[in-house]
Amino acid sequence: MRWIEEESFERLAEDLEGRGFNTSWIKEKVKSFKVETPSWGYRDSGTRFAVFHQPGAARDVHECLEDAAFVHRLTGACPSVALHIPWDRVEDFGALREEAEAKGVRIGAINPNLFQDPDYKFGSLANPKPEVRKKALEHIFECIDIMEQVGSEVLSLWFADGTDYPGQGDFRRRKAWMEEGLREVYDRLPGKSRMLIEYKFFEPAFYHTDIPDWGTAYALATKLGPKAQVLVDTGHHPQGTNIEFLVAFLISEGKLGGFHFNDRKYADDDLTAGSIFPYQLFLIFNEIVSAELEEVELDLAYTIDQSHIAKPKVEAMIQTVDVLQQMYAKALLVDRVALSEAQAEGDVVRGEEILREAFSTDVRPLLAQARRELGAEPDPLGAYRRSGYLERVAEERA
Amino acid sequence: MRWIEEESFERLAEDLEGRGFNTSWIKEKVKSFKVETPSWGYRDSGTRFAVFHQPGAARDVHECLEDAAFVHRLTGACPSVALHIPWDRVEDFGALREEAEAKGVRIGAINPNLFQDPDYKFGSLANPKPEVRKKALEHIFECIDIMEQVGSEVLSLWFADGTDYPGQGDFRRRKAWMEEGLREVYDRLPGKSRMLIEYKFFEPAFYHTDIPDWGTAYALATKLGPKAQVLVDTGHHPQGTNIEFLVAFLISEGKLGGFHFNDRKYADDDLTAGSIFPYQLFLIFNEIVSAELEEVELDLAYTIDQSHIAKPKVEAMIQTVDVLQQMYAKALLVDRVALSEAQAEGDVVRGEEILREAFSTDVRPLLAQARRELGAEPDPLGAYRRSGYLERVAEERA
Amino acid sequence: MRWIEEESFERLAEDLEGRGFNTSWIKEKVKSFKVETPSWGYRDSGTRFAVFHQPGAARDVHECLEDAAFVHRLTGACPSVALHIPWDRVEDFGALREEAEAKGVRIGAINPNLFQDPDYKFGSLANPKPEVRKKALEHIFECIDIMEQVGSEVLSLWFADGTDYPGQGDFRRRKAWMEEGLREVYDRLPGKSRMLIEYKFFEPAFYHTDIPDWGTAYALATKLGPKAQVLVDTGHHPQGTNIEFLVAFLISEGKLGGFHFNDRKYADDDLTAGSIFPYQLFLIFNEIVSAELEEVELDLAYTIDQSHIAKPKVEAMIQTVDVLQQMYAKALLVDRVALSEAQAEGDVVRGEEILREAFSTDVRPLLAQARRELGAEPDPLGAYRRSGYLERVAEERA
Amino acid sequence: MRWIEEESFERLAEDLEGRGFNTSWIKEKVKSFKVETPSWGYRDSGTRFAVFHQPGAARDVHECLEDAAFVHRLTGACPSVALHIPWDRVEDFGALREEAEAKGVRIGAINPNLFQDPDYKFGSLANPKPEVRKKALEHIFECIDIMEQVGSEVLSLWFADGTDYPGQGDFRRRKAWMEEGLREVYDRLPGKSRMLIEYKFFEPAFYHTDIPDWGTAYALATKLGPKAQVLVDTGHHPQGTNIEFLVAFLISEGKLGGFHFNDRKYADDDLTAGSIFPYQLFLIFNEIVSAELEEVELDLAYTIDQSHIAKPKVEAMIQTVDVLQQMYAKALLVDRVALSEAQAEGDVVRGEEILREAFSTDVRPLLAQARRELGAEPDPLGAYRRSGYLERVAEERA
Repeated sequence: MRWIEEESFERLAEDLEGRGFNTSWIKEKVKSFKVETPSWGYRDSGTRFAVFHQPGAARDVHECLEDAAFVHRLTGACPSVALHIPWDRVEDFGALREEAEAKGVRIGAINPNLFQDPDYKFGSLANPKPEVRKKALEHIFECIDIMEQVGSEVLSLWFADGTDYPGQGDFRRRKAWMEEGLREVYDRLPGKSRMLIEYKFFEPAFYHTDIPDWGTAYALATKLGPKAQVLVDTGHHPQGTNIEFLVAFLISEGKLGGFHFNDRKYADDDLTAGSIFPYQLFLIFNEIVSAELEEVELDLAYTIDQSHIAKPKVEAMIQTVDVLQQMYAKALLVDRVALSEAQAEGDVVRGEEILREAFSTDVRPLLAQARRELGAEPDPLGAYRRSGYLERVAEERA
Repeated sequence: MRWIEEESFERLAEDLEGRGFNTSWIKEKVKSFKVETPSWGYRDSGTRFAVFHQPGAARDVHECLEDAAFVHRLTGACPSVALHIPWDRVEDFGALREEAEAKGVRIGAINPNLFQDPDYKFGSLANPKPEVRKKALEHIFECIDIMEQVGSEVLSLWFADGTDYPGQGDFRRRKAWMEEGLREVYDRLPGKSRMLIEYKFFEPAFYHTDIPDWGTAYALATKLGPKAQVLVDTGHHPQGTNIEFLVAFLISEGKLGGFHFNDRKYADDDLTAGSIFPYQLFLIFNEIVSAELEEVELDLAYTIDQSHIAKPKVEAMIQTVDVLQQMYAKALLVDRVALSEAQAEGDVVRGEEILREAFSTDVRPLLAQARRELGAEPDPLGAYRRSGYLERVAEERA
Repeated sequence: MRWIEEESFERLAEDLEGRGFNTSWIKEKVKSFKVETPSWGYRDSGTRFAVFHQPGAARDVHECLEDAAFVHRLTGACPSVALHIPWDRVEDFGALREEAEAKGVRIGAINPNLFQDPDYKFGSLANPKPEVRKKALEHIFECIDIMEQVGSEVLSLWFADGTDYPGQGDFRRRKAWMEEGLREVYDRLPGKSRMLIEYKFFEPAFYHTDIPDWGTAYALATKLGPKAQVLVDTGHHPQGTNIEFLVAFLISEGKLGGFHFNDRKYADDDLTAGSIFPYQLFLIFNEIVSAELEEVELDLAYTIDQSHIAKPKVEAMIQTVDVLQQMYAKALLVDRVALSEAQAEGDVVRGEEILREAFSTDVRPLLAQARRELGAEPDPLGAYRRSGYLERVAEERA
Repeated sequence: MRWIEEESFERLAEDLEGRGFNTSWIKEKVKSFKVETPSWGYRDSGTRFAVFHQPGAARDVHECLEDAAFVHRLTGACPSVALHIPWDRVEDFGALREEAEAKGVRIGAINPNLFQDPDYKFGSLANPKPEVRKKALEHIFECIDIMEQVGSEVLSLWFADGTDYPGQGDFRRRKAWMEEGLREVYDRLPGKSRMLIEYKFFEPAFYHTDIPDWGTAYALATKLGPKAQVLVDTGHHPQGTNIEFLVAFLISEGKLGGFHFNDRKYADDDLTAGSIFPYQLFLIFNEIVSAELEEVELDLAYTIDQSHIAKPKVEAMIQTVDVLQQMYAKALLVDRVALSEAQAEGDVVRGEEILREAFSTDVRPLLAQARRELGAEPDPLGAYRRSGYLERVAEERA
């Protein structure tokens, strides 16, 4: 693993300088890249066919925080943890906040659960029954309270609302209920906080979902106001969707709020980000870096949203962070001046080659160096495997 | 073909009255249903692999009008014809208008062609070259002039703009150009006219299109103002899209402007509307009828947009009109009071059965009667085949 | 509901005779149509997000048989029940067979479960570990024993085998293991029994499945021999797949063994058969009827494979049987002589109209009559709702 | 562009040796990688919306050969050219063969055109009309004659056969005709030559195609015999298809005959191979290299099949060759011993990381060196741009 050596970084830096890049600026950007890990990514999970228990999987929010803190220690890139209510509900959220901070992380986005309770079988905010809509709303209000207790500024909303059959629901009426509920949530948002509206093409509703695509989420967020933005889950699109395009669109409208990262080959497979389509992930970051360089105002909540079965939980999380960092770093290596020229001239091959040049560059030495400077592990996955962490928690959590 | 007999209608009417429907109201609604046919649907067309000439295919706009008028005479449902400029460009559009009216039809939507000229290889309104954007804009202005000359109130805009490769274009810059151009078009719209913005998931651009989905078209139309609306082409969506849902969404936002009807199994196959997914077409009309009954303001430009290769042109057009009428008529037979009740009670099976009841009803006797009352042919396809029209024009247009 | 009256049937019969059909032959065909219901369709089920308990859902195989027998009593079309092992495992399968027969049904296909046990996390017959492959094989052997005890002649094999990530498995090695295991199963098949090999595009494996498509199942079945055939699950295909084509292909090769019926809009949604694409279901039956009339040898195991959440279990099952019967009946109304002529002449519109004529015909009076003659309920769904069955079992099974 | 320097290669070689690889063996493998370019890739082409003329596009087969020879001179990897009949038909094929050889290339696969003639509107070998089937067969026989004249051993068969509407054709009858025709072709194949059967999910037929998927092509090829194999066009699959899996399947059955390389995001977009999903292309080569190392018998006809509109023809071809070489080279860098171990142990993360390690490696220095040793250009795209070739032929072919 020569990429781990400082000498490799020096050589890469020299190459990049030769190609006109400011390596230290790039390295600082890489160091500043942070992504939130989700508490639910450390717990057991499954498909509808089976749940497979993993030795050492976190059993409660405290163990989730422990795992998340270890991921942050190794990567230097994951200072916050998203919570899912009620899965992560505790008596004293003030104490939980302190616990997190003591472990070296903080609480990030709060995610209400509006799908698991039997009352939500036919929807939450879009449920035809007013008492269920009220219950859903109150649960979201509870989450807003929790935000204040834990110091979170992001309310992350995913609705499983939808129907399974034609005739089951009235689309326009459900939309009105959804808008009504979201308005109440919006009006309750405290201080500088914001709400992110996620969309999903299908599942668990199989005929229609009430917020199926970015267009619906955008329309709702736009009508609500500046504190409502769209959350892009990279696995929630129809096949063939050009995600980087809609990311650019939302950026240009000031409506991109953040990401749930994962990858998929088929539906919402919840695979490791970049494991199937790494180039697509690079192209998404390419849009973000492009906007950052033009000083477009951006405040993106990057979150991993994966549910691993085949892979060990913590290991998969570390691997994901590494992939995200690599793709972000590659996006920083795009020669944007040359790209603009190629685009203006209609030089399609050159435009593409500029992107491929960046994507082909092996950025692992840069990442190793950035991590060293952050006091993290240059090779976090290797360090994890050598750490004995899994063996220890597997025993403790047996 | 017993359905053609008046007795069949009487029996159906009796059935429907027994189920609580007002048959004469339904019949009047069916009679009021009108759909525009496109001039280009009467001309030769092809795939990228081959163009197959059809005997009798229209060779110019005058022959298109002749065919369209004959379709209207047989069906009673197609009083207007959409034009495509420059394919249908003539010296004197005032004369063309009179020619159409003399034939019993009128000119409908005007469709600029922004994809065929070599200058548009890299886009029209979103082209990086200002001179191409200007050219495209001026072509649209020409179309607006034509609208005034022919008495059309609908400008129907489809942009083939997009790119084939990552790096080829700058998404946000292209969006800005598109918005700039559309704003100029909007400001030029005369009197009561409106512009419809079509979207297309892909093709002829294969990496991204500048208006790929309803969300993009909606966002653009919303920013422009009330005279801009979305045009839904039923063949332009990703696989799995719930079209009836987005139709309902656009209706509720006052942004549904009309349809381009066709069907597809794979991509933008341009097959006869309802030939692959007839139930989906019924469900789309179900949303429209639902809104009509609630007196939602709706002014929908229904247009057929098909390009037949395997089927004879005029015959396919008549068949399409028949399918559309059938699906609209079935949508009128949904028991909406019972449906609302079932939805309120969460009775999923009953809600679905109410739709299936309407869809299962054989409405051909109703259509035959409506056509008789309109002075058209009860069985327009049979009448066409017996008319000798094709044989005559095939000879004339040889 | 005039369709329920005998007079409606008489009128339809008269119409059909007028169009040249032999109504009594058609009615006998409809009466002979039988479809198996699955024990697991009567139990609680869910998505990966939640399991919603239904009042009255069957809790064990005995209650499944009770529900299945009631469905058969109402519809006259469901004389057998598919079992899933180990879910339906009992001490004494001989006694279970008698219990079923006493209730008026019999045991149909046996379905081994090769996905739920933690050992199967990385596959069953294609698992890299020999001990897991052996375990899977022995489980299948147990199922073959059960077949003999319950008098079943169909072994229905679905493998969840696959991988989630590139690099996780060796495709060719896994294929060799799968073939080796299937060969052992094949050699163990008793007497006149056969094995049906199901395929699935994805889920629960998300990068590759070992039997993803009909081609793989066909290749495996062909290499095994005549007692191995392909099982088509209507929800297990890529978007856009022409299912009726592959059905025809398998028929022509003597390799179509049966169906798992359900419908889907997106992935493997497990919705009621025909609820989303009824015309497609009709076109599938159209291929089967076409082959039946040409006296192609066919022995098709028709089974419903659905997992309802939004709909009550038994009600959904009855509704499904009704849909299947309708689509089969419509397929019997295709004028095949005329269709052959139209095809020979290249008359595309007429060929299509012949199918649409059959599909548009309201066959409910025919079904009502067929059920009457079978001693079942002309309107089984209505009869079920009136029967008080659900209320009774909901109380008993509380 | 430091990668072009020999020093870069040396450093890479040192790294690889350090990781246990035999660099000179890898370099020889890279040097032995050859891919055929298609005559039609040098000509003007278009979408169904427009054909855009490119300055310098080849106007006849002689100019195609000239371009192909130049691509081979620059890359050292493209010694043969696929022909399309009748597009490339000449009076004297013996002379054409000599012309090619004089230019430094040879004639490769012969591709009959069975879609452009109006007679083929309803199919070629599967056409209901016997005279059209006969015509198609004779055209294929002509192509077999040409094979003998030009010394080609590959007959590459793509059928546009299919239908646009339900009812248009009889699936089983069409299959019988197709099989009958293919049998006659098979029996005519001379000496060591073989026929490759291509499949395509859709287009230009939009309801069904007679050979829609690998399973159909495999079944047909298997029934014909060892001289018939499957041709995988990387752009001809349903969304989500795991192409590397079916490649492995076909390899294990001895039925993989070759590739048509291109990429797509949506349908059959004919984009540059690897331009959208480079990792997928790597995974395909990974299966091939894996089989090569196990000494599975393989004789793969690698051909580029692309139709560029946005990119200049020759430039796009060179770029494609480079991408293919890169992905093949990366596949050679997979540590297969370690991979097998990881798979046996169920170490999913390690298995994946081994692939990612290979994919992340920047192999351009290796390619530059291989090309130098072949007497080609280390940077063929740059060399092409500097060569003035396009300017020269654009003038000559004006």
